[in-house]
Amino acid sequence: MQESVQHLRWTESHMPLMADIRKEYEVKRPFAGLTIGVSLHLEIKTAVLLLTLVRGGASVVAVGNYGTTQDEIVDLLRDRGIDARGSGSDHRDEHLAAVRSVVESSPDLLLDNGADLYRLAVDLGVEVLGGTEETTSGQTRLQTELVDLVHVPVIVVNDSPLKAIVENKHAVGQSVYESICRLTNLQPQSRQMLVVGYGWCGRGIAHYARANGARVCVAEVDEIMALEAAVDGFRVGTVSSLIGECDLVITATGAPSVVDGEALSDVRDGTLLANAGHFDWEIDMPALDGMTVGTEELGNTIERHTLRDGRRVDVMARGRMVNLAGPRPKGNSIESMDLGFALQARSLERIVEVHDSLPLGAQPVPDDINRDLARRFVEAAQGRPLAQPPGDRSA
Amino acid sequence: MQESVQHLRWTESHMPLMADIRKEYEVKRPFAGLTIGVSLHLEIKTAVLLLTLVRGGASVVAVGNYGTTQDEIVDLLRDRGIDARGSGSDHRDEHLAAVRSVVESSPDLLLDNGADLYRLAVDLGVEVLGGTEETTSGQTRLQTELVDLVHVPVIVVNDSPLKAIVENKHAVGQSVYESICRLTNLQPQSRQMLVVGYGWCGRGIAHYARANGARVCVAEVDEIMALEAAVDGFRVGTVSSLIGECDLVITATGAPSVVDGEALSDVRDGTLLANAGHFDWEIDMPALDGMTVGTEELGNTIERHTLRDGRRVDVMARGRMVNLAGPRPKGNSIESMDLGFALQARSLERIVEVHDSLPLGAQPVPDDINRDLARRFVEAAQGRPLAQPPGDRSA
Amino acid sequence: MQESVQHLRWTESHMPLMADIRKEYEVKRPFAGLTIGVSLHLEIKTAVLLLTLVRGGASVVAVGNYGTTQDEIVDLLRDRGIDARGSGSDHRDEHLAAVRSVVESSPDLLLDNGADLYRLAVDLGVEVLGGTEETTSGQTRLQTELVDLVHVPVIVVNDSPLKAIVENKHAVGQSVYESICRLTNLQPQSRQMLVVGYGWCGRGIAHYARANGARVCVAEVDEIMALEAAVDGFRVGTVSSLIGECDLVITATGAPSVVDGEALSDVRDGTLLANAGHFDWEIDMPALDGMTVGTEELGNTIERHTLRDGRRVDVMARGRMVNLAGPRPKGNSIESMDLGFALQARSLERIVEVHDSLPLGAQPVPDDINRDLARRFVEAAQGRPLAQPPGDRSA
Amino acid sequence: MQESVQHLRWTESHMPLMADIRKEYEVKRPFAGLTIGVSLHLEIKTAVLLLTLVRGGASVVAVGNYGTTQDEIVDLLRDRGIDARGSGSDHRDEHLAAVRSVVESSPDLLLDNGADLYRLAVDLGVEVLGGTEETTSGQTRLQTELVDLVHVPVIVVNDSPLKAIVENKHAVGQSVYESICRLTNLQPQSRQMLVVGYGWCGRGIAHYARANGARVCVAEVDEIMALEAAVDGFRVGTVSSLIGECDLVITATGAPSVVDGEALSDVRDGTLLANAGHFDWEIDMPALDGMTVGTEELGNTIERHTLRDGRRVDVMARGRMVNLAGPRPKGNSIESMDLGFALQARSLERIVEVHDSLPLGAQPVPDDINRDLARRFVEAAQGRPLAQPPGDRSA
Repeated sequence: MQESVQHLRWTESHMPLMADIRKEYEVKRPFAGLTIGVSLHLEIKTAVLLLTLVRGGASVVAVGNYGTTQDEIVDLLRDRGIDARGSGSDHRDEHLAAVRSVVESSPDLLLDNGADLYRLAVDLGVEVLGGTEETTSGQTRLQTELVDLVHVPVIVVNDSPLKAIVENKHAVGQSVYESICRLTNLQPQSRQMLVVGYGWCGRGIAHYARANGARVCVAEVDEIMALEAAVDGFRVGTVSSLIGECDLVITATGAPSVVDGEALSDVRDGTLLANAGHFDWEIDMPALDGMTVGTEELGNTIERHTLRDGRRVDVMARGRMVNLAGPRPKGNSIESMDLGFALQARSLERIVEVHDSLPLGAQPVPDDINRDLARRFVEAAQGRPLAQPPGDRSA
Repeated sequence: MQESVQHLRWTESHMPLMADIRKEYEVKRPFAGLTIGVSLHLEIKTAVLLLTLVRGGASVVAVGNYGTTQDEIVDLLRDRGIDARGSGSDHRDEHLAAVRSVVESSPDLLLDNGADLYRLAVDLGVEVLGGTEETTSGQTRLQTELVDLVHVPVIVVNDSPLKAIVENKHAVGQSVYESICRLTNLQPQSRQMLVVGYGWCGRGIAHYARANGARVCVAEVDEIMALEAAVDGFRVGTVSSLIGECDLVITATGAPSVVDGEALSDVRDGTLLANAGHFDWEIDMPALDGMTVGTEELGNTIERHTLRDGRRVDVMARGRMVNLAGPRPKGNSIESMDLGFALQARSLERIVEVHDSLPLGAQPVPDDINRDLARRFVEAAQGRPLAQPPGDRSA
Repeated sequence: MQESVQHLRWTESHMPLMADIRKEYEVKRPFAGLTIGVSLHLEIKTAVLLLTLVRGGASVVAVGNYGTTQDEIVDLLRDRGIDARGSGSDHRDEHLAAVRSVVESSPDLLLDNGADLYRLAVDLGVEVLGGTEETTSGQTRLQTELVDLVHVPVIVVNDSPLKAIVENKHAVGQSVYESICRLTNLQPQSRQMLVVGYGWCGRGIAHYARANGARVCVAEVDEIMALEAAVDGFRVGTVSSLIGECDLVITATGAPSVVDGEALSDVRDGTLLANAGHFDWEIDMPALDGMTVGTEELGNTIERHTLRDGRRVDVMARGRMVNLAGPRPKGNSIESMDLGFALQARSLERIVEVHDSLPLGAQPVPDDINRDLARRFVEAAQGRPLAQPPGDRSA
Repeated sequence: MQESVQHLRWTESHMPLMADIRKEYEVKRPFAGLTIGVSLHLEIKTAVLLLTLVRGGASVVAVGNYGTTQDEIVDLLRDRGIDARGSGSDHRDEHLAAVRSVVESSPDLLLDNGADLYRLAVDLGVEVLGGTEETTSGQTRLQTELVDLVHVPVIVVNDSPLKAIVENKHAVGQSVYESICRLTNLQPQSRQMLVVGYGWCGRGIAHYARANGARVCVAEVDEIMALEAAVDGFRVGTVSSLIGECDLVITATGAPSVVDGEALSDVRDGTLLANAGHFDWEIDMPALDGMTVGTEELGNTIERHTLRDGRRVDVMARGRMVNLAGPRPKGNSIESMDLGFALQARSLERIVEVHDSLPLGAQPVPDDINRDLARRFVEAAQGRPLAQPPGDRSA
């Protein structure tokens, strides 16, 4: 607990947007009398968000994601009056029971990731005022399987342009590169790296890797993004045409099997594979396992596969997100989560304030919230005011 | 003429998209029997476009912009069978007569910049099948003053994402920085530079300046763009809060008087001002002239203003576009214009093919044209094929 | 042990220069019948060196540095037949006894860091053929207090230009930046960072920090280095003139109290201080403690000092080397140590081969060893041969 | 003349070191009564140096290099009382006569480039107090053919570390890249470029090219420099192994025929060749001419060679220095020449002051001059003082 409290103090002191919101909430109490049901990855930065919601008057009932909950965070949250459910060692049915118990606690608002809470609320007939959704995959569920079932406004936070810029490009880009260096103790200078995908994350990874001295090429099937990669100075091609020249391959597409069996058959001896995408399906591990005659654990989540012809392929974290892998992963930077969680808090407030007049179902973060937080983020980071906008867009 | 022919040969040999189109046109002849009325800045890269249209069967009647037409290009075009009107030394009424004469030649298609031809076609009752418009300001006219008057499809080329990336960010960004170095013979390393505006052009200028060793800060009133500049690593603030610490100020906003009298009153002695925006209104020259007690010409378009308190302010090209200023300006790179003009040619073809089924008025470049040319541009630049797209989007 | 063996396998597989040397040593056995006394930081990369020397026929008696020995490495080394002395939990007198026991084992060669073994060999009258010294501070001792006492050749490895480039600039530069991100979970983009010192390490830190998006200024008292920093694009000044504008300060000078009480009195609220230099004297901690009215531990070695006027100053690892601080530090990259340890092995061989004909005392790595290893490093990293040199310099 | 006077005003206002020296000279008059014989490339920045020497009391007799003298500069100098000899259109014998006439004017000091004046002074028996030499090739002559013949001190300016950093790396690096863009109107982003040589100039070219978006590889025969290039993040190899993959090749080695017939036989169709080294011998033009079946001029010094097998190779300025080629070349930046010429002026002063006590023959710039000018350069560029050095080194 001692260590968690120290981390909390440190983290809080570098989340100025949350600090402003907490201060405001003590007076305003926007969530007074309301219960917020939360499903989010439970780590130290999340704790700052939940404690901020409590400061705003909310009762918070929270559960983490399967298998990644940090028990010392659960202890810390409980110690501060938050009803945190489950633990990192829960089996899947225990975890699902904990998620279900959050919905059964009859929350007024939901703060979800992956739309599990919204699904359960529909199934269990629990009514809420509305809420937020953190992820793009949750958004997809809300717009397909839940589209006619969720009759309240749900603000999708990951859609905000602020997240694309600050979190997906810069925070993920940097943490992926840093994580590979940290876990391998290698310095990929003068090595050839292949980044698969040139979306916001891939763009970030490619730029940070090149800035740190790697030679980087990019595989991208979308022609417009491929053009952008090319004029940004990267060699561009297909996975198959490039993989055989590379020492290090990082996937960041969101799509399955972008490094498939065919591509794997072309790797050179000693290639290192890692994934930065949300799911562990971008590297086709079954295909690789099928080509493998022996594996060896090399520490820090690295597994060496020896193929039939003697080539060795090293895989990090069996293709799970490399910036959350290994001992003491940090995830995204504190600053980037300060912004992301401020979007959460402001969006929940908006639901409380005007849930009657908002459209139903999944919707983007309101423009005035984006603009207000963008301004505050820059002013906090740089300690100087920006210009006031020409008109008051938030009116 | 000898020199123009040499430049034409060089330029053609670095416009592979246009070369492919010319080859195809010899067989296909998409403009056979059609006259295209053209208003575009007449320089060597434009010549390649016009000669390509001719190869496609078109009769071309062309006029340049006021005051920038290169007479040797007019000679070259005439020598190759293009009806080029006007000259660089024309007075304004002569120029306007030349423009009018293009419309009076009863073209079937228009290739316009600034919507002057469309305006005249309406005024003179000349009917065309449709055409293209190069600029955003032309698009604005088509969507306002001409919105109910132009009853044919007009594809606006500057709207294409390809142009934003290749031309606005990279080609303009690089050429503005290069032009300042070329005209001043200075190397702004370890100097403080202020870039006003973080749109595509400002972004490009800021990145190229920093990559070349300048210390760069950014003034931007849009909060989202200001956030992007900040996490891209630039100090961000208002013009007024930053200008007093800077040695070099470059405007790229599209808006008038972004460096106004108030900002000018804060500049330090020796500050150099330049503009990269389309119009010469971003630096408030009347305000500066009003503060000035004496001016001195220092060559290469640089004018030194001595203010009442003795401070000196140097202005390049009196605030006109710096990358078109001074002796032998080059404008954007050949590669970027190869892409931009390929968009023109393909859009004109599309008008001919399906003008009946296209919406009327200003509209974006069709997605399949963007994707096809993005692919070809990358393949030509890198000499290797990209992946075929999942489905045939152009069908 | 299991984890150490995994790390050893991983590490060995990314030290191609050491692998080549091991292969050669099996046949050549250059150290057959010889005992090598070693004092070096004992971690996994050092294990690869020592096991390589054993493969060359050596008996190795080794001791680590005070307080940093990793016990699992000691176990691993003993398991593989190396006489490793001491442990990470030794008190100072236990540590000194272990160092002394290495010299008392009558080694034929010494591989030292800090010249402790050479000092003891003189004091105890132990005669050796010669050896190597890893550090610049050991070199200083050899050239001052030991200059008339050491009558054998000692090759100083840190003097090699290969180390300056690969280790000091790139490996230290990258690991310092990465360590700060890892320990703080901050991303110093758009923050202002002050790097104190523009020697090889400071140069590396400044470049990696800027490449990763920080705004960096440099304090340097040497005029030539200050000039280099300025034209490399950094703002340059004194610590006092710059520290008050900075969020993050990193020292890398080798000199004491470069951030002294006067400088500390100018820091802004929230400034983070870290040191990258070998000794923990660059930030004047006694001065800071004297200004402090309260401290708070914030985890990951971060200590927050509250000054009398309420300002808070955060210090990492109390001014010890930040890239060796906190849980699971990695130190320099495997590749850089592959090169550094190859220099060690080749220099020890040279001592064995021609100790009679070498000059006595401290001396640089022979040029032919530098050139041979530079070539092999590049060829291993890039998988392609370099040109053969005009003449055979190593003859 | 009008334009030259404008350029002079502009240039003077950006040479703060020279301005300080001129001011000091008005009082101090260090060259009163002395004649300085000068051989230097005569362009606008040189004019500032010569006029500064005149302000210090000198009579100046000057001649330019063969074929590059700008006649408007000669006119300007004469108008200001400098005895400028020769013109840009002189035939070689006229040029040599002009050079000879400088020595025959019995100067007290020489400011030479290439050691032609020193050679003539020996041959003609003209005695001087000493002087300076701008170039490394002049230094070589002074240390070989003239070593026993020149009995006065000659300070070699190009040897200063200030020149390596500011001029060779940054000014040449930037101007070479800029010149290629300017002359070709291409933007080598996403193109593959080969830089031959990784000395100060090659290092600068490679860094600026990469910073501007080119993909850059490096050919270097020196193993230590090859290592530096590799860890700086460049692919490294031999000219032969790399040239076939490149679109653009730039030589910067100082050595002859580094792109020889064998290498030329491997180029791909459309390769562009340029040289940045002092002599036009780095690309083996006779070998290329021998492989060529036809040539075509393409403007801006570009010559296209068609080889027997149909491949085309484009050469800029027939292998002469590309940053001095074509219309209106600028040469190095004003700031870099301010520093280089301040080194000249201070070194000449030193010769006058203590020529009796200096060693004879070629010698480096005294350390105190380097340090004083480094400090002034940084302070002028950044408008803030540096720390005073620990002791007064210049005493």
